[in-house]
Amino acid sequence: MKIDKLAGDRFKERPSDCVIDSHALMIRGGYIKGVANGIYSSYMPMRRITRKIENIIREEMDAIDGQEVQFPVVMPGSLWEESGRFTSIGSELCRFKDRNGIPMVLGMTHEEAAVQLVRESANTYTKYPFMIYQIQTKFRDEGRPRAGLIRVREFTMKDAYSFHTSQEDLERYYKICYDAYNRIFARCGIPEVVTVKSDSGMMGGSISHEYMLLTPIGEDSIAICGECDYRANMEAAECITENKCEGEDKPLELVYTPGIHTIEDICNFLHTPLEESCKAVVYQKNMTDEYVIVFIRGDLDVNETKLTNYLGEEVHPGEITEDCGLYAGFIGPYGIDKDKFTVIIDKSLEGTHNLSCGANKPEYHYTGLKISRDLGDVEYVELAKITDGGICPNCGKHSISISRGIEVGNIFQLGTKYTKSMGMQYLDADGNLQYPIMGCYGIGVGRLAASVCEVHHDDYGPIWPMSIAPWQVHICCLRSDDEECKGFSDKLYEDMLGDNIEVLYDDRNIRPGAMFSDADLIGVPVRVIVSPRNLAENLCEVVTRDKEINEKVPKDEVIPFVRKLIAERLAACK
Amino acid sequence: MKIDKLAGDRFKERPSDCVIDSHALMIRGGYIKGVANGIYSSYMPMRRITRKIENIIREEMDAIDGQEVQFPVVMPGSLWEESGRFTSIGSELCRFKDRNGIPMVLGMTHEEAAVQLVRESANTYTKYPFMIYQIQTKFRDEGRPRAGLIRVREFTMKDAYSFHTSQEDLERYYKICYDAYNRIFARCGIPEVVTVKSDSGMMGGSISHEYMLLTPIGEDSIAICGECDYRANMEAAECITENKCEGEDKPLELVYTPGIHTIEDICNFLHTPLEESCKAVVYQKNMTDEYVIVFIRGDLDVNETKLTNYLGEEVHPGEITEDCGLYAGFIGPYGIDKDKFTVIIDKSLEGTHNLSCGANKPEYHYTGLKISRDLGDVEYVELAKITDGGICPNCGKHSISISRGIEVGNIFQLGTKYTKSMGMQYLDADGNLQYPIMGCYGIGVGRLAASVCEVHHDDYGPIWPMSIAPWQVHICCLRSDDEECKGFSDKLYEDMLGDNIEVLYDDRNIRPGAMFSDADLIGVPVRVIVSPRNLAENLCEVVTRDKEINEKVPKDEVIPFVRKLIAERLAACK
Repeated sequence: MKIDKLAGDRFKERPSDCVIDSHALMIRGGYIKGVANGIYSSYMPMRRITRKIENIIREEMDAIDGQEVQFPVVMPGSLWEESGRFTSIGSELCRFKDRNGIPMVLGMTHEEAAVQLVRESANTYTKYPFMIYQIQTKFRDEGRPRAGLIRVREFTMKDAYSFHTSQEDLERYYKICYDAYNRIFARCGIPEVVTVKSDSGMMGGSISHEYMLLTPIGEDSIAICGECDYRANMEAAECITENKCEGEDKPLELVYTPGIHTIEDICNFLHTPLEESCKAVVYQKNMTDEYVIVFIRGDLDVNETKLTNYLGEEVHPGEITEDCGLYAGFIGPYGIDKDKFTVIIDKSLEGTHNLSCGANKPEYHYTGLKISRDLGDVEYVELAKITDGGICPNCGKHSISISRGIEVGNIFQLGTKYTKSMGMQYLDADGNLQYPIMGCYGIGVGRLAASVCEVHHDDYGPIWPMSIAPWQVHICCLRSDDEECKGFSDKLYEDMLGDNIEVLYDDRNIRPGAMFSDADLIGVPVRVIVSPRNLAENLCEVVTRDKEINEKVPKDEVIPFVRKLIAERLAACK
Repeated sequence: MKIDKLAGDRFKERPSDCVIDSHALMIRGGYIKGVANGIYSSYMPMRRITRKIENIIREEMDAIDGQEVQFPVVMPGSLWEESGRFTSIGSELCRFKDRNGIPMVLGMTHEEAAVQLVRESANTYTKYPFMIYQIQTKFRDEGRPRAGLIRVREFTMKDAYSFHTSQEDLERYYKICYDAYNRIFARCGIPEVVTVKSDSGMMGGSISHEYMLLTPIGEDSIAICGECDYRANMEAAECITENKCEGEDKPLELVYTPGIHTIEDICNFLHTPLEESCKAVVYQKNMTDEYVIVFIRGDLDVNETKLTNYLGEEVHPGEITEDCGLYAGFIGPYGIDKDKFTVIIDKSLEGTHNLSCGANKPEYHYTGLKISRDLGDVEYVELAKITDGGICPNCGKHSISISRGIEVGNIFQLGTKYTKSMGMQYLDADGNLQYPIMGCYGIGVGRLAASVCEVHHDDYGPIWPMSIAPWQVHICCLRSDDEECKGFSDKLYEDMLGDNIEVLYDDRNIRPGAMFSDADLIGVPVRVIVSPRNLAENLCEVVTRDKEINEKVPKDEVIPFVRKLIAERLAACK
């Protein structure tokens, strides 16, 4: 490819709407162009990168007996009604009607389509296990697309679905897929990706893992133990608290606390630590607006994912109206109307005493609350967010730190959620009808490309790993007006093409600085610079984008030198 | 791949809703499964076929300097408003609103997206010419999806867009693309595809060609000259008529013709040939319901595509109401109200005389009409459909025959329709702003696969060309309960895998008849049959799906024998 005909522009100024580096560089480098909020077109360099990523994924999926299939982007709503997701998913599921008024959806994931494809034919145990996958466009009508390709509305995804006759077999295959994913990320140049236990959310199922690339710009928070190998998404991480009950029980006592509305204020007022308070956090159920009040230790926060899972429905922060029966700033567990509100008490309050809390009466708090004495036998639910410096659920040490990461892949043990709801059954060896057990496995291609860029770039552009670089070699002819320089560069380009080297060729008549800026933005791993000065000594300059190599190479040895570099770097991405 | 784990069923009975063979075989062979009307999922064999087709297309597009890019499936309606197509296209364009109420469309073609991608960066003549293409899912909400993958709503398409600074350069590149398309079809195993001139329809532009695979099940009609190389889509074919004016002019005469309503009846009544009559064909404009009356020679039909192009808007067959001012069966050009109706006279009536026609009065016709005498100076428009046995517009002989074909690809010279409407300009060498000239080039991947199946199959299944076959070799182990037979088959399978031969392996314990039926349906070109009887003589049977070869081969020579077959057949697809 000659750079002068390459569609797309490269430029120097960082666009003001780009918050993260990969987004800015992909816009500046002519990789992508916005078409609508969270919807992008890709130029050739980006498409070459995503094709290479797709091929790596395909090879690894084929190697674990995956069967590549293709599901539709547009599906009938009736198919999603079978699983119940047509109604249970919110506005991120794009619904519309076709020309005949039939409800349709755009696929944001394909569990339903996967079951529909195989539910008649996989009718006997001998056909199991099997895995089907596709690499296809998906649309998820995100409320807040952001960060370039990290969170978009339309994206290319590899999604895979495996079917099994036992939980043991699912777990066996899950492990195989787990390893295949690690190979995929290593081959794409980010072997540093870590796995964390996660919450399966709306996908259903139980055990699941996310593959996280740790970076400060990530939108996920991950709890990592510094002492053992525990890692979990904050949404899924168990929060262990040391519940103290030292000293004597004090009596429950009503205290006049005029103008004091926050838990911090009441603790300051009483000169007690936050750990000796009971905070109320108010939500409302999305469907009914019914109030849900969570009581939790004053220094902790509610993990809303855990709350949603516990309730089995979505909630939003509660709005306390004048006549709702709650007094903002004075809500407490003692004397609250349990018939009117859903009241939940967090595990952090179990076995504690001498708590301050709201008195459900304007301008009053209680002190001396002991739940087991004052409220009797209550259920404690684990709903707190794990904290930086908190206790590791695995090794028990105060060794948790919270990092941020980008989720570059995920794997789920789905169970029978979809096969049961959609009536997929097979005959087992004893002639009994059984529901197959499913796993599902996803990787977003564009997000993966952006993630690699995010961790492999400098101020001047991306530094693509050889395995997914848009081209392997970039020839810069510094003086296209010099006959010998141009002639040698042209021949080098043709020879490399003939040698099946992926080469980008810049023979524009522009300043070397502008030429190198463009090359930096395109981020090709190996650059060959041809100049009259070096040619006079029969040399070319070979530099790598990562600055590891900067050598003058005899001009007749450039191709073997470059071939060796390419081979070494490809081998390193394994 | 082992066949027992292959997702999808194969079965014998032709589904009752399959009208054409390729559809029936693709359902029976476990290639595709319907998800909704005109929407299919693909199983592994189909996906392997489409991937190979995609790769052939990609190679040929790259070879003519195409830059692979990717446009979104979901686009903002505002982008289509720029070109005017948001409103000008009917209900086949799927429109919906996103979660924020913003109008969106599903891409059925990507001219707008292509211009949007390059309109800022291709701002100077030195960046031209260039071609960008993608292989991506499209959705067209067809009113009547039919014939399996031949006419669907969702499909994968390669669409390419070229940009030029002159019509000459577009024509130069158009020819290059024309040849690339021929190579693509030849490589996919259907070199018999012919090109025909076509009508560009709603795409805009002027010159265009369709690539037609001639088959009786095709939905397009093609006029082909038996004497010269003229070929054209019936919609685009010029209709040449021999307009006779023999004998003396007769006077215009009103004739009482009670109960005679059709042009055939009036000619029978008058004992005159159909060629001496003037038929009225009534349409109404889609937007306004205004009447359009076409007068044409009695033996000819109106080409509605030409009519639409002439009018610049869509029409539908007219409904003649009681008070509309027209009398069904008695409409004629003499005395018709030209202020009230759009009246068009076809070229077939130019220079003729002594015509019978309606008199715009119930129960009356005229005879002796001579348009030049009775109506004066009128414009004659070429609107007739070419007929079987008609005159070739190229060589002038009565040598036209009408064949049916499937359109497997098309290329268009678009001109400046999109660049002008969307404000894309570049600076030419003189510093003047100019609109680039575009070409566009499409191939439907699934339709191409179905078309190959349509012309390469027998009663038992598809006969895939080696270049796009789902696998190259199919091993049938006839007796998996026989240790030697199974052992040899297993090793052959492993050895072929190790030798990078694409191999499907059937070691199920089933009857040979059932095994061969499945193999016929999967249509793999080369079959290796391993049986105890042949093994006893150190032989294997190698047969090809097309029955050209049926040989017993020494068992140790099977792999080299098969490799040679594969190489020969791949070489034949060029």
